[in-house]
Amino acid sequence: MSKTTAGRFFEDYHIGQQIVHAVPRTVSGGERALYHALYPARTALYSSDDFARACGLPQSPVDDLIGFHIVFGKTVPDISLNAVANLGYAEGRFHAPVYPGDSLRSHSEVIGLKQNSNGKSGVVWVRTRGENQRGARVLDYVRWVMVRKRDPDATAPETVVPDLAAVVAPDTLVVPQGLNFSDHDFALSGEPHRWGDYAIGERIDHVDGVTVEEAEHMLATRLWQNTSKVHFDGTRRADGKRLIYGGHVISMARALSFNGLANAHMISAINAGSHANPCFSGDTIRAWSEVLDRAETRAPGVGALRLRLVASKGACDVLKTDDGKYHPDVLLDLDYWVLMPI
Amino acid sequence: MSKTTAGRFFEDYHIGQQIVHAVPRTVSGGERALYHALYPARTALYSSDDFARACGLPQSPVDDLIGFHIVFGKTVPDISLNAVANLGYAEGRFHAPVYPGDSLRSHSEVIGLKQNSNGKSGVVWVRTRGENQRGARVLDYVRWVMVRKRDPDATAPETVVPDLAAVVAPDTLVVPQGLNFSDHDFALSGEPHRWGDYAIGERIDHVDGVTVEEAEHMLATRLWQNTSKVHFDGTRRADGKRLIYGGHVISMARALSFNGLANAHMISAINAGSHANPCFSGDTIRAWSEVLDRAETRAPGVGALRLRLVASKGACDVLKTDDGKYHPDVLLDLDYWVLMPI
Amino acid sequence: MSKTTAGRFFEDYHIGQQIVHAVPRTVSGGERALYHALYPARTALYSSDDFARACGLPQSPVDDLIGFHIVFGKTVPDISLNAVANLGYAEGRFHAPVYPGDSLRSHSEVIGLKQNSNGKSGVVWVRTRGENQRGARVLDYVRWVMVRKRDPDATAPETVVPDLAAVVAPDTLVVPQGLNFSDHDFALSGEPHRWGDYAIGERIDHVDGVTVEEAEHMLATRLWQNTSKVHFDGTRRADGKRLIYGGHVISMARALSFNGLANAHMISAINAGSHANPCFSGDTIRAWSEVLDRAETRAPGVGALRLRLVASKGACDVLKTDDGKYHPDVLLDLDYWVLMPI
Repeated sequence: MSKTTAGRFFEDYHIGQQIVHAVPRTVSGGERALYHALYPARTALYSSDDFARACGLPQSPVDDLIGFHIVFGKTVPDISLNAVANLGYAEGRFHAPVYPGDSLRSHSEVIGLKQNSNGKSGVVWVRTRGENQRGARVLDYVRWVMVRKRDPDATAPETVVPDLAAVVAPDTLVVPQGLNFSDHDFALSGEPHRWGDYAIGERIDHVDGVTVEEAEHMLATRLWQNTSKVHFDGTRRADGKRLIYGGHVISMARALSFNGLANAHMISAINAGSHANPCFSGDTIRAWSEVLDRAETRAPGVGALRLRLVASKGACDVLKTDDGKYHPDVLLDLDYWVLMPI
Repeated sequence: MSKTTAGRFFEDYHIGQQIVHAVPRTVSGGERALYHALYPARTALYSSDDFARACGLPQSPVDDLIGFHIVFGKTVPDISLNAVANLGYAEGRFHAPVYPGDSLRSHSEVIGLKQNSNGKSGVVWVRTRGENQRGARVLDYVRWVMVRKRDPDATAPETVVPDLAAVVAPDTLVVPQGLNFSDHDFALSGEPHRWGDYAIGERIDHVDGVTVEEAEHMLATRLWQNTSKVHFDGTRRADGKRLIYGGHVISMARALSFNGLANAHMISAINAGSHANPCFSGDTIRAWSEVLDRAETRAPGVGALRLRLVASKGACDVLKTDDGKYHPDVLLDLDYWVLMPI
Repeated sequence: MSKTTAGRFFEDYHIGQQIVHAVPRTVSGGERALYHALYPARTALYSSDDFARACGLPQSPVDDLIGFHIVFGKTVPDISLNAVANLGYAEGRFHAPVYPGDSLRSHSEVIGLKQNSNGKSGVVWVRTRGENQRGARVLDYVRWVMVRKRDPDATAPETVVPDLAAVVAPDTLVVPQGLNFSDHDFALSGEPHRWGDYAIGERIDHVDGVTVEEAEHMLATRLWQNTSKVHFDGTRRADGKRLIYGGHVISMARALSFNGLANAHMISAINAGSHANPCFSGDTIRAWSEVLDRAETRAPGVGALRLRLVASKGACDVLKTDDGKYHPDVLLDLDYWVLMPI
C-alpha cells in the first residue's frame, strides 16, 4: 500500500525479465561543464568542437563516461537498491557518441540468476542498454550484483549463469561513424604518443593524485540520478563518511590517465571491471595503466588499445596480494578498449 | 558616501513601495545540470525534452524551484539583508514554466508593515513577482520577514497587515498552456501512482536521507545570486558552520519526495511555508509528505494535489511538540499544490 | 621512454620559444552557471542576455575571468608544473568577449629568462595569448614564474629581463566592439554609482566574507583544466589541505567587489598582480578596492577605472608591513582596468 518502493529483492527477478528504467534524461553543455569540474578530464575530443570536427565528428560529444553513468544511474532503483555488492561488468560496448541535446533512456534484461548457498541473497546478471531519442543504441553492458532476498525462505530460482566473453573481440568494436584520426593534431591533444608507440605489457604511472571530498562525489552521483542511499546518507557510519559511487572512481582514474594516455580519446568497450575496495572521502586517488592488447580497426587512422586501468588509495604498485585478493589499497581494476590515432 | 550598501532597515519601507530588484538572469542547461547535481531531482518532466513534449510542453522546463530561487535571490539585497527571520510565505503561484534561454527579473511591492512591540524591529510583507524576457509573469508570492530598525527611535509606521489567503484556491491554479497528462507514461516517470491513488490524510515517508555539506549549499545559494552573508561567512559561529539557505532545504526535501510522489510533476502554488529550525552542514535531511487536499483542473488529464512537505534532521515523525512549537528537528513545513496525472 | 611528462624545467626554455598549449576548449552555458555557483558573481552584463544587448553586445558573454582562467589553465602543464612560485602578471589585455559556443586555445612565447643566483632555479617570463575559433585574440598577458632546474649544473642562459609596462596605457585599452553604456540601466545593474562618482584614492570595503572549502576550489581549478598537483593532492601537507589556485582568489575577490563596484562591468586590462600569500580551505576571503586612476574611452558612455583589488584572510586594512612585505593575511594585490558607465 506504501507509495514508496523498497526496491526489488532477489526473488523479484526472473530470467528474461524486461525492465524499462524510469526518468529519461536530456544532456546539455551543463553536464559537460560539470564533468570537467568534477574530474581532471582533458581529452581534446571531449573538450573542443573544433578538435572533434577535425576528427570527423559533427561536434564534441560528451565524455563516454557521462553516457555510461546516466544509463547506469537509471538502473539503480530497479537493480541495485538492495545490492550487497556490485560484482562485475562485461561485454560493455559504446555504440554511438552522446551529444548535447541528446536524451538517454535505459532498459535492462535479466540474463542470469544464482542464489547464494547461504540462502539469504543471490546474484543477478542484467544486460543494460542505453538509447538516445532516435532509438539508436548508445551503449550496452552486462553487470552483475549480489542482491538480498526479502524472504530467506523464498524458493531459489533455477541457476542460470550467462556465458560472457572475457574480452570484447576487437573486430566487433564499434567505431563512431565518420571518426578519422588521419589528420590528428598531436600538439593540441597534449601528447605525441600514437597507438604504435604503446607496447603490450607497457605500464604507465599516471603520476598525479586527487584527494576526494564528500561534496564532490555526491554532486557527481546525483548528477547521474543514481539514488543508492549509501552514497548520500552519513548516518550509516560512525564517522559520517559515505561510500563513494564506484563510477566516481572510474571517472577519476580515467581522467588521471590523460597523463600518459592523452590520445586514448574514446572508450570503445569495457571488458571487465572490479570495484576492488570501497573509496571514502579523504582518500587520495592515484592510477596506473597497463597495455593489454592492440588491434587495428577499419576506420581511417584509428587503432584500438586494450588497457587495464588500476586506481588505488595512494601509490600502490601491487595489484593483488599473495592470497590472490586485491591489495586493500586497490580501488578499481578496469579492463577496457580505447580508440586512438595510429 | 559609502559606495557599498548595508541594505534596507525597517524604517526604509513604506506601504505601496515598488522595488525593482537588480541583476536579471538568463538561465541555460547549466543551471539545470547543477540542479540535478545539487539535489536528487528525478521528476521526468524536468529531466527529458521528449517526456515534456509528450506532456504537451515545447521542451523540458527547468525545475519550478530554479525559477523560485532565482526570483527570490534577487530580492535578498533589497528585502532580507537585515532580516532577523524569514517568517512565512503565502499566495505563491507558478504562472509559466521557465525554459533554458529565458531571462528572469524580479519586482516587489511592500504590502504590509508592523513594528514589533520592542521597537527594535518590524515585520515587512512584500508581494514579489518574477517575469521573463517577454514580460510574462513566471511566478509570484508573498513573503514576510522580520527586519531590524537602523534607528530604534524612528517612528513606527501605521500597522498594515495584509489579508492573505490561507490556501491558494484550487480553481485559481494556473495550469501551463498545453499541459496534457492524458498519455502520461508511468513507466518512464518512475511510479504508477496517479492523482486518484492519493487519499486526503495519507502520509508518505520518503525513505531516503541526504547529509549536507558546506560546499553544496554555498554552490546552490550563490547560483541563485542570494547574497545573504549568513550562508557564506564561517567566522560568524565558533564552529565555522554557516546557516543553510532555507530554499536549499526546500529543494532537497522536494527532490527526496520523488520517492512516493514521482508523478507530482509541477509545483503550481505555495500556500504556506515555515523554516521551522535552522539547518547546518552535517545534518542529514529526511522528508515526509501528507496529502491535504485534491482538486480537479480544466487541463486534460491534470489533477491538483495539495501536500504538506516536512523536512527534518534525521527521522522525525513529530511535527510539533506539546507546547505547539515545531519539534527542534523539524526544518521545513511547506504547504503547496502540485499538478499530476489523473 | 616514459609516456608521462614531468613538465619543463628551467633549462628547457629559451628566448623566442613558441609553445602551443594543448586541449582547446569550447565553452557553454554550463561554464557560466558553474561560475555563478562558485563565486558570488552578480555583474548584470554577465548575467543577462537582455542586459548585454541593451549595452550593445549580441548576448551576454561569459565572465572575463572565465576566459582568463581557461587560457591560463592550458599553460600550466607547459609553464608552471615545476614552478616554485607564480611571481607576477603584466600587460594583460582583454581583446574580445567570450560567448557560449566559443572555443579557446592558448599559445605562449618565452620572452625572458634569468637564472637565480643559487643556481637551482630561474625565472621564466612568457607572453600568453588566447584565441577563439576564428583566430581572433581574446586576451593576452605576461606572466613570470620561478621554475626549478632539472640539473643544477646546467649552464645558465643569457639573462633577458623583458621591459614591461608598469600599467597598460589607458589609450590602448580595447573596448569590445559595439559596447555602449549610454542607456545603462542602473536599477537593473544593482547600484547607482557611475564612473564619475569614483575619485582617485577612494577606498571601498566590499563588506562580505566567504569561507572557502576544498571541494569548491578543486571544482573551479579543474573546470579550467589547470593540472597543478598542489591544488588537488592532500597528501602533500600533514593537515590534508591543498594550496588554492591563485585565480580562485582573484575570482572570489572580484565577485565580492560587486558590493560597491556593481557597474565595473568588464575587465579591460590587468596591470599587475601578486599572490601575496597562500590561501587554504577554511580561510574567509574578504576584499577591498582602491581607485588608482580614471580614463575616458572613445566608446559611447564608457569610462575606464583603474583599481587595486586586495583580498585578505579575514578583515585586513594593512597591505604591507613596516618591512615592505605584504601583511601575512593579504592574499592578493591586483591592479586592473575596468570599463563602466560614465
